[in-house]
Amino acid sequence: MNINDPESYLESLRTLERNVYVLGERCTNTVDNPLVRPSANAVAETYEVGAEPEAASLLFTTSHLSGREISRFTHIHQSTDDLVDKVLMQRLLGRRTATCFQRCVGMDGFNALYSVTHECDEAHGTPYHARFKDYLEWVQDSNVVVEGAMTDVKGDRSLRPGEQPDPDMFLHLVDRTPEGIVVRGAKAHQTGALNSHEILVMPTTAMREGEEEFAVSFAVPADTKGITFVLGRQPSDTRKMEGSPLDLGNRYGSQEALVIFDDVFVPSERVFMCGETDQSGKVVERFASFHRQSYGGCKVGVGDVLIGAAQLAADYQGSSKASHVRDKITEMVHLNETLFCCGIACSAQGRATEAGNYEVEPLLANICKLNVTRFPFEIARLLQDIAGGLIVTMPSEKDFDNPETAAYLEKYLKGVDSVPTLDRIKVLKFIENMTVGCGAAAYLTESIHGAGSPQAQRIMISRLANLKEKVELAKRISHIED
Amino acid sequence: MNINDPESYLESLRTLERNVYVLGERCTNTVDNPLVRPSANAVAETYEVGAEPEAASLLFTTSHLSGREISRFTHIHQSTDDLVDKVLMQRLLGRRTATCFQRCVGMDGFNALYSVTHECDEAHGTPYHARFKDYLEWVQDSNVVVEGAMTDVKGDRSLRPGEQPDPDMFLHLVDRTPEGIVVRGAKAHQTGALNSHEILVMPTTAMREGEEEFAVSFAVPADTKGITFVLGRQPSDTRKMEGSPLDLGNRYGSQEALVIFDDVFVPSERVFMCGETDQSGKVVERFASFHRQSYGGCKVGVGDVLIGAAQLAADYQGSSKASHVRDKITEMVHLNETLFCCGIACSAQGRATEAGNYEVEPLLANICKLNVTRFPFEIARLLQDIAGGLIVTMPSEKDFDNPETAAYLEKYLKGVDSVPTLDRIKVLKFIENMTVGCGAAAYLTESIHGAGSPQAQRIMISRLANLKEKVELAKRISHIED
Amino acid sequence: MNINDPESYLESLRTLERNVYVLGERCTNTVDNPLVRPSANAVAETYEVGAEPEAASLLFTTSHLSGREISRFTHIHQSTDDLVDKVLMQRLLGRRTATCFQRCVGMDGFNALYSVTHECDEAHGTPYHARFKDYLEWVQDSNVVVEGAMTDVKGDRSLRPGEQPDPDMFLHLVDRTPEGIVVRGAKAHQTGALNSHEILVMPTTAMREGEEEFAVSFAVPADTKGITFVLGRQPSDTRKMEGSPLDLGNRYGSQEALVIFDDVFVPSERVFMCGETDQSGKVVERFASFHRQSYGGCKVGVGDVLIGAAQLAADYQGSSKASHVRDKITEMVHLNETLFCCGIACSAQGRATEAGNYEVEPLLANICKLNVTRFPFEIARLLQDIAGGLIVTMPSEKDFDNPETAAYLEKYLKGVDSVPTLDRIKVLKFIENMTVGCGAAAYLTESIHGAGSPQAQRIMISRLANLKEKVELAKRISHIED
Amino acid sequence: MNINDPESYLESLRTLERNVYVLGERCTNTVDNPLVRPSANAVAETYEVGAEPEAASLLFTTSHLSGREISRFTHIHQSTDDLVDKVLMQRLLGRRTATCFQRCVGMDGFNALYSVTHECDEAHGTPYHARFKDYLEWVQDSNVVVEGAMTDVKGDRSLRPGEQPDPDMFLHLVDRTPEGIVVRGAKAHQTGALNSHEILVMPTTAMREGEEEFAVSFAVPADTKGITFVLGRQPSDTRKMEGSPLDLGNRYGSQEALVIFDDVFVPSERVFMCGETDQSGKVVERFASFHRQSYGGCKVGVGDVLIGAAQLAADYQGSSKASHVRDKITEMVHLNETLFCCGIACSAQGRATEAGNYEVEPLLANICKLNVTRFPFEIARLLQDIAGGLIVTMPSEKDFDNPETAAYLEKYLKGVDSVPTLDRIKVLKFIENMTVGCGAAAYLTESIHGAGSPQAQRIMISRLANLKEKVELAKRISHIED
Repeated sequence: MNINDPESYLESLRTLERNVYVLGERCTNTVDNPLVRPSANAVAETYEVGAEPEAASLLFTTSHLSGREISRFTHIHQSTDDLVDKVLMQRLLGRRTATCFQRCVGMDGFNALYSVTHECDEAHGTPYHARFKDYLEWVQDSNVVVEGAMTDVKGDRSLRPGEQPDPDMFLHLVDRTPEGIVVRGAKAHQTGALNSHEILVMPTTAMREGEEEFAVSFAVPADTKGITFVLGRQPSDTRKMEGSPLDLGNRYGSQEALVIFDDVFVPSERVFMCGETDQSGKVVERFASFHRQSYGGCKVGVGDVLIGAAQLAADYQGSSKASHVRDKITEMVHLNETLFCCGIACSAQGRATEAGNYEVEPLLANICKLNVTRFPFEIARLLQDIAGGLIVTMPSEKDFDNPETAAYLEKYLKGVDSVPTLDRIKVLKFIENMTVGCGAAAYLTESIHGAGSPQAQRIMISRLANLKEKVELAKRISHIED
Repeated sequence: MNINDPESYLESLRTLERNVYVLGERCTNTVDNPLVRPSANAVAETYEVGAEPEAASLLFTTSHLSGREISRFTHIHQSTDDLVDKVLMQRLLGRRTATCFQRCVGMDGFNALYSVTHECDEAHGTPYHARFKDYLEWVQDSNVVVEGAMTDVKGDRSLRPGEQPDPDMFLHLVDRTPEGIVVRGAKAHQTGALNSHEILVMPTTAMREGEEEFAVSFAVPADTKGITFVLGRQPSDTRKMEGSPLDLGNRYGSQEALVIFDDVFVPSERVFMCGETDQSGKVVERFASFHRQSYGGCKVGVGDVLIGAAQLAADYQGSSKASHVRDKITEMVHLNETLFCCGIACSAQGRATEAGNYEVEPLLANICKLNVTRFPFEIARLLQDIAGGLIVTMPSEKDFDNPETAAYLEKYLKGVDSVPTLDRIKVLKFIENMTVGCGAAAYLTESIHGAGSPQAQRIMISRLANLKEKVELAKRISHIED
Repeated sequence: MNINDPESYLESLRTLERNVYVLGERCTNTVDNPLVRPSANAVAETYEVGAEPEAASLLFTTSHLSGREISRFTHIHQSTDDLVDKVLMQRLLGRRTATCFQRCVGMDGFNALYSVTHECDEAHGTPYHARFKDYLEWVQDSNVVVEGAMTDVKGDRSLRPGEQPDPDMFLHLVDRTPEGIVVRGAKAHQTGALNSHEILVMPTTAMREGEEEFAVSFAVPADTKGITFVLGRQPSDTRKMEGSPLDLGNRYGSQEALVIFDDVFVPSERVFMCGETDQSGKVVERFASFHRQSYGGCKVGVGDVLIGAAQLAADYQGSSKASHVRDKITEMVHLNETLFCCGIACSAQGRATEAGNYEVEPLLANICKLNVTRFPFEIARLLQDIAGGLIVTMPSEKDFDNPETAAYLEKYLKGVDSVPTLDRIKVLKFIENMTVGCGAAAYLTESIHGAGSPQAQRIMISRLANLKEKVELAKRISHIED
Repeated sequence: MNINDPESYLESLRTLERNVYVLGERCTNTVDNPLVRPSANAVAETYEVGAEPEAASLLFTTSHLSGREISRFTHIHQSTDDLVDKVLMQRLLGRRTATCFQRCVGMDGFNALYSVTHECDEAHGTPYHARFKDYLEWVQDSNVVVEGAMTDVKGDRSLRPGEQPDPDMFLHLVDRTPEGIVVRGAKAHQTGALNSHEILVMPTTAMREGEEEFAVSFAVPADTKGITFVLGRQPSDTRKMEGSPLDLGNRYGSQEALVIFDDVFVPSERVFMCGETDQSGKVVERFASFHRQSYGGCKVGVGDVLIGAAQLAADYQGSSKASHVRDKITEMVHLNETLFCCGIACSAQGRATEAGNYEVEPLLANICKLNVTRFPFEIARLLQDIAGGLIVTMPSEKDFDNPETAAYLEKYLKGVDSVPTLDRIKVLKFIENMTVGCGAAAYLTESIHGAGSPQAQRIMISRLANLKEKVELAKRISHIED
């Protein structure tokens, strides 16, 4: 397997023999399932050099392991420039797809495990780092999509892993053999699960002494025996099956699935943590920092398209010169670029780990994501304000096709005279998709919960804020002596 | 016709012979169309006494015309208490349906035209007020649903009605006969159009001299010759046709349609304005004030259900004791009740018109609506925050039905042990509906644009703010003399 | 004593023989102390009929005890109309003074104690209600200013009253004689303390069993033996002593003091609670509700002047036609009127107590105040935005007087040609006062902490929100059965 | 002159023979004037190596002109690392002084003029760049403070420079001799004017053809004949003269003055622009970008101290474990670090000019400043919330000194038992200073208006947003073809 363009990527997915359920039915070929395809199209863009002059150098780079050219999605960041380029790549792909292209979770998982396996080996004499590099080099060369799987289903949120009535609410070790381990549990909200060749499992939280069985990390092929995928529903999802591209609004999409591990065997060479509870929290925090940085790139790219759509809708309706419209668009830009600033800042302030790779500045990465949990809602609100109520009252594509209504619609839904009615409808259908349709799942809900819910960021910010040092500043300036 | 309960209401709709299009097909029986039915169910609640002790006195009252008991939706407000009761009724129905129950536009239209026809007759010697009262008494007795139709399609927003390349972009008079008038045009975003027996047309903006043809107001039966309805799409709308009540999330719904008037004849006795441009702005402003008040009731009722859903979801997941969850719920309550304060205040500060009926305080009504264009988005964001990402990653009802996946889902999507998994899923599917699904059209987008877009409120606030008087206050206290 | 105009009010203050400290010195005549006078001027406005047509009926009303005309500040609200009129009176006085006129705490204390003394007598057979009415009738007839004293100094916020290392951190009973009681402690932030004839003490929080000594309420003359007042500092306070009215910005002011009770004797006929812990929480909650309503009036009146000042400053600088300036002023109006809506709503939704007087709707009163803790900061920010940086870089009045600089300032600080430079400076000095000067203490800081800090409102909102009922709504609509 | 520590800096100011007015009086020695001194102390910190390990490398660097060590405040940025270090230096000094240290305007002016003089010479054959480098090298070696003077008084904001009734409302050329030029006008809000040795004048806006006389830039010593300084007032300014350090709150301060140029002669070798209108807008935009970046450093440093003060005040009052307090402090950190992200991002994304020096990314610099016009107000509001109302009701230092009140205050203003009362008062007095006192001028008002008012940033954001490109993204994804 050596995937090097969108076509070979899509073809590679067709060969996977997985246990997948979509809307209540077994699905043996996800890539040609119209409900799933838009999300595969978004991933496929990561394989596409594209027309943007800067794209090639952002999407592809050189492996520090092999010296060969690889996808940046499989790269270990070697400098703050690499961290910045990651954000720029994400913004670029957000601009192309206006959705989640699903390949960042794996990338962020690689970069977290790279340094933690190193430190774990130092602390415990384990063999994980070399194993992980072997795996990673294979990933880089084969260029497969690896889904990063962290979030357990968690059951009762007021109970720790070991305290749940059902021990499987957190994925855990159920057996250990000379050749490997057996695990059971389920990972929820798995982004791009059906578009991935591999699954990279990580623990969902910092485990404590006595919770060793939950401190496991490993990689398995997506078609490993015992794994079941159930695709999640999204708003307006079945429009993808209607054959009405106009009503679809965006031909790219995102995807999440529930992934169940029913006593799955993992060979030792793919196990990267197994019981080292003191390392589990570090994986979570580093992965989270990288992934919170990511949102300062991808969602900004989506924001760019939404700002363009606002301007276009206003142009088409004759309102783009109104001062309140211009002011709202300026505000959208302001909010969007504030997110970008956060993505850039935590990258530019990044630093080397003991393993030599670069990680983001974690406080600023959490700041980044916490803003992402807020601003896209305001951007979406402003966009809907500019677009007008028509986004939820537009007739269907079929009404535009029906000769009994087509002329009426053509006539009465026209905006400015020079623009074809259907062009206006197209951009409004796109806005519908992004703010109350399928795209809202990725742009709004995922912006809240992806890479951890807001409270997770607040806890990290509180922890990383160095309040003690700030108290000393206040004491000094207030002339308070202890 | 004398509709007095939900059943007779639904039955009455079946008899209407209208020209309706739904998803590209002619639909002769809207009420039994599964895509439309949830919205009819919401309207039907206005005919239902219901279990709430205060419901009867809120939903029904005594006609000042006939002295007979009538639906408050057909009532002319006789006091500030009536204005307050209107808001309380709307909150109650919002709590029942968690959506738009579609009957307020007509009610607000009645109350606007009641005073304006009176003043028009005073100014121009026209016969509109008596005509309008005759019509209204018939409405009160028959208890039909009357759709208020104001918003024209408007074409190029930078051009006035008379300046549009296509003169039909604003509904207008095309002929006048001894028996009545003929009109042409289209009204967009018509709430509850397919669930209404009658259409009450009003001008969309204040017309100026030379724009007489656009200053028309009248009522016609929905099945009048020349009228065509095209239903608008909403997010996730076709879930209503899937036969998956779980995935539907809310069995009530709202509805908007495009209503086209292709040379429709209106008999004189149903014409309430025809060319009196100086009266048109008053209809718009008074209707808008009443309708902006309305949002301080209905959306608050929906908010109540959403707050309950947040608490319920948190209870079911074991997170309701976390201080950040409690704090977010408090914030949701705070925002929701602030909207209620605005709805109550503009009612309590209402005043009598020359015609004797009561109108709301217009500045405060605009304040009310402008807050409604903002707070529901924040409430929805907080609700999604508390509910978790599962709202956009949950499997379908069909996956819960499929024996190959059912046990997995039952097991892994459980929250606290004492609550059946499906109960948790039910409330999350409801939250999905309300924040990114079908219900978001009514709770979010309509909150921006219904009763006029935010800028319309800002213009009115600026106009009604009495800045001159405030400048005098500032001069006095700053000891500035002219 | 029968105070009936500003002059007799000021004269009456001169006769009080109190123990007052101002900036480190004993002050025997506060009213003629230039540091204190602006705050007395603000109180004096409550005795002034004034030029506004509605003022007389708002400021004065009829006693339900005596049938005589009284100041509304001494009135027990008899209806929701009375509650609304209270808010309108407060807005009117806020418009006159642009500051805190200090007489509301007493008024709100009267109305809280009126119903609680009644209920206490019912529960405990105590004689408080009749005593309180006697006292109140004397207050109404004499028309004295009564300071409401609730907030204890509280020491360590993590400890209950009885747990403090120093038991005096909450005012408490230290002795009881046949003729009365002796109390010790201190009340902080006492609004208008130096401008009051009487002090009405109330407990600061809901006391529990074992905390009887802290559950005391009583009234004493301000010049009672053992009471010491220490005036608090405010920003720019000494400008009042400079003799530079221009630099002062606002000739009205507010005032807070620390009031220390060092074994003060209170005769029995002025004791309204003594040990009835179950009643103490009710006093706090009812007082708080009334006082949180108050902010929906007074601060709105101040907001009116600030909006006028924004418009005036823009007019004087030639910027008032810029769309962003108009938009900011509209936003200021919107925020200010939202606060007014809350003040009106909790009044209009008020209800009778068992004692027959009317209290506000407590949930909405808390909503009101919580908004007041936020919006004035945004109004002040917008005002500063419009006014320009000159508010903190303007030369002093003395520079305008100095012939070496006067001509330069006259020339270079001119705005539009038609407006004298000093008129522009006057309004900017007023804005300075209100946003970063002395007036900011009342408009900003007091808006956060007066009538309880934000968290106090949030706790009440959470408690009053009836989440259980809302959960039932969510269950019903989600088809969840227990 | 070769200033190399705080003492020599202060001494150097004493030798300046300037025409300065302070509170209406001529002031010949500003540095020993107690009203001015705190602001000189803040500038003096820029000469102090200090205790922070990173300070030396941030405050001092190597001149690219001479290779000698210089103050970074006189440095021309040679890389994005330099741009980042500038922000870090500003944060460090903000943490030391909690105010404006006044030396950035000059630094930002140097960096703007460096590239513009180069481009001007290319376009017009002028000799400015070499002249400017000569001047700069002298500044670097002498290490003087140079005030950057941009903002004209501007008169009627609706009129252009040439249209004002009084032509002097914008500083302009009035004569030209073989040796130099003569200018007239006034610069307002001049930060640090009384603490500077030199004034570097720049045009206030982009001049157009016909406005040549206003397109002037030059440097003059502060004690040049014809220059008059009038110090601006700040809230609570005279506390600095009371000899009450406790009440002062912060012994550092900021400063703004009006600087009048009454026919001032400038020798040719100090003239850097004279009539090249096409270059004037570039100076304004580049200076503004640098200065908008600056706020992402200095105000963040101040924010650090305020966050520390919030934590300290809560600790001292026993409230720091309350979840709402912790949550508010987390929010303060979040807002503060978001500003820092913006400061870092516009630096890290900086780029080389044609002259070889580095400038910030201008869109992100404007984003930075626009956030600064908002967040400090929310930070200040949260700080006041945590600190409590005592910040505006505390007695004066003199009351703590007066034996008749001292014991009462010591007793009753105590917080937790282990902390001396005066320590609690100290931090609260600091908070008073920063939120409603003298410090609020720098932290709040200056955050709005410094480096241009919010609308200036919005205009730049709108201009730099590349909406055309974003429209193309929206068209592509919506399948709209032209």
